[in-house]
Amino acid sequence: MSVLIVGSTALDSIKTPKSENPRLLGGSASHAAVAASFFSPVKLIGVVGEDFPKGYIQLYKRHKIDLEGLQILPGKTFHWSGEYEANMNNRRTLLTELGVFETFTPTLPNSHKNSQFVLLANIAPSLQHHVLNQMKRPKFVAADTMDLWLNIALEDLVKLIKRLNLFVLNDSEAHQLTKEDNIFPALKKIHKMGPKYVIIKKGSHGSILSSPKGIFICPAYPLHEVVDPTGAGDSFVGGMMGYLAAAKRPVDAHLRRAMIYGSVVASFCCEGFGLMGTTRVTRPQIEKRVSELEKLTKF
Amino acid sequence: MSVLIVGSTALDSIKTPKSENPRLLGGSASHAAVAASFFSPVKLIGVVGEDFPKGYIQLYKRHKIDLEGLQILPGKTFHWSGEYEANMNNRRTLLTELGVFETFTPTLPNSHKNSQFVLLANIAPSLQHHVLNQMKRPKFVAADTMDLWLNIALEDLVKLIKRLNLFVLNDSEAHQLTKEDNIFPALKKIHKMGPKYVIIKKGSHGSILSSPKGIFICPAYPLHEVVDPTGAGDSFVGGMMGYLAAAKRPVDAHLRRAMIYGSVVASFCCEGFGLMGTTRVTRPQIEKRVSELEKLTKF
Repeated sequence: MSVLIVGSTALDSIKTPKSENPRLLGGSASHAAVAASFFSPVKLIGVVGEDFPKGYIQLYKRHKIDLEGLQILPGKTFHWSGEYEANMNNRRTLLTELGVFETFTPTLPNSHKNSQFVLLANIAPSLQHHVLNQMKRPKFVAADTMDLWLNIALEDLVKLIKRLNLFVLNDSEAHQLTKEDNIFPALKKIHKMGPKYVIIKKGSHGSILSSPKGIFICPAYPLHEVVDPTGAGDSFVGGMMGYLAAAKRPVDAHLRRAMIYGSVVASFCCEGFGLMGTTRVTRPQIEKRVSELEKLTKF
Repeated sequence: MSVLIVGSTALDSIKTPKSENPRLLGGSASHAAVAASFFSPVKLIGVVGEDFPKGYIQLYKRHKIDLEGLQILPGKTFHWSGEYEANMNNRRTLLTELGVFETFTPTLPNSHKNSQFVLLANIAPSLQHHVLNQMKRPKFVAADTMDLWLNIALEDLVKLIKRLNLFVLNDSEAHQLTKEDNIFPALKKIHKMGPKYVIIKKGSHGSILSSPKGIFICPAYPLHEVVDPTGAGDSFVGGMMGYLAAAKRPVDAHLRRAMIYGSVVASFCCEGFGLMGTTRVTRPQIEKRVSELEKLTKF
């Protein structure tokens, strides 16, 4: 089954202590779409400007990503620039140029409206709502978010959470949203807001799934070197939704394995700048790390 | 097989946002010894003053801890006082009164010198050396430490690490010791310092074992409420060494399970002030959480 993915499609200029990489392909939807493409056909919804490099369109196409929903508009592509500290955990934004993203209205081609698996990757909750409003009856809707929307669009976000099957957020966002320090009362409050499934991402410490069947502790694949963690969270949810759509039924056991696959794709993402780590990967390499994770956690 | 444990034996006054608890039984050796006692006989090496409550001696005895190596000297018991913030992660020391600990020289009764499993719980590396110097040929020596010794006794600590089979430290200490941000180069440097096995503790994010057979990612048991995390790390290493001594052969597979048991005992430790959480536990309750951890991590 295919996955419909909406989110940002951007050019990322990323600086680390070791190197500087201007105008890489980035954005939550780009990372999520490529990650999902290893497991299922992907339909991408996004917007780019006329300056968007043709090579990046080719990259999407190599991953067989359906681009009917990608708008190419007069103006500049959304451009983000950020700098990481030596530990690769702390980063600061140097520049944000919204470009064509400022007036983006995601419009679904008719052929997309029946999609069963929907990933509302990180963008403004109002746009996530707008996509969902155009869908017929999707089977499984997941959304990711970021602290920005908790700060400036909380009301929209809370309304969105109500409409989701799965809400994905990181630990500090969960704390910000619920004012709870401990994960269990935080999860309880988020479930009460609507979603049957909640995933809390903890970066290199892995993630936690909370479902009606209880908790799943999902490890992160341990990396010898992190080159660029930008997009790791997006790759995680993208890989997960791609795997889930292929498994068809979004049950607890499939979600657990889907998270493992998402975690592995995210690990590859961290090993290269932008999407370079993810795009050079093959399915057998993914399967190898999944087997390794089985061994790494066995007791 | 029994475990010989040396470390601090103290009175802890612990303040949290919810309550204040003066003069609880504490210290690295107390926590580790009680934790280990669920699995193996324990021989405790430590020192207390004349003010040490008889009830705490009884508590050790209820756990069948051999107290031949516990010195009771004229003067005051080591007293530590600390305060936790609301998130229970950040704490600050309010007071440290060394008392009889200031001049403590751990002396091993003859019956203790042949112990096969030795845990040098957190105390000054010079004292950890002193204990090891009195031992005949122990089969497996593990040591824990804290940032204080990295700051004021690094040379002693480095010499100690060379003598260990297993060195246990937390992630920030590993960073401080090796100047490496990533766990793999950090582990490589620590192995080069001597120990075949290294465990890096990550608090509520679990721990990592590095052995000749590779990495093991050990989860923390997820807790609904953390009452007092004091001694959780000591309970982890204590429970682990107790389990390992019972398993007799310190091989990779036993170490992995030993870490799981240590992790579970540490979880009970966090559920009460001082040793209250740990002492009220039964072996079947420990087994129950071990089974739960198996389910919580299955994919």
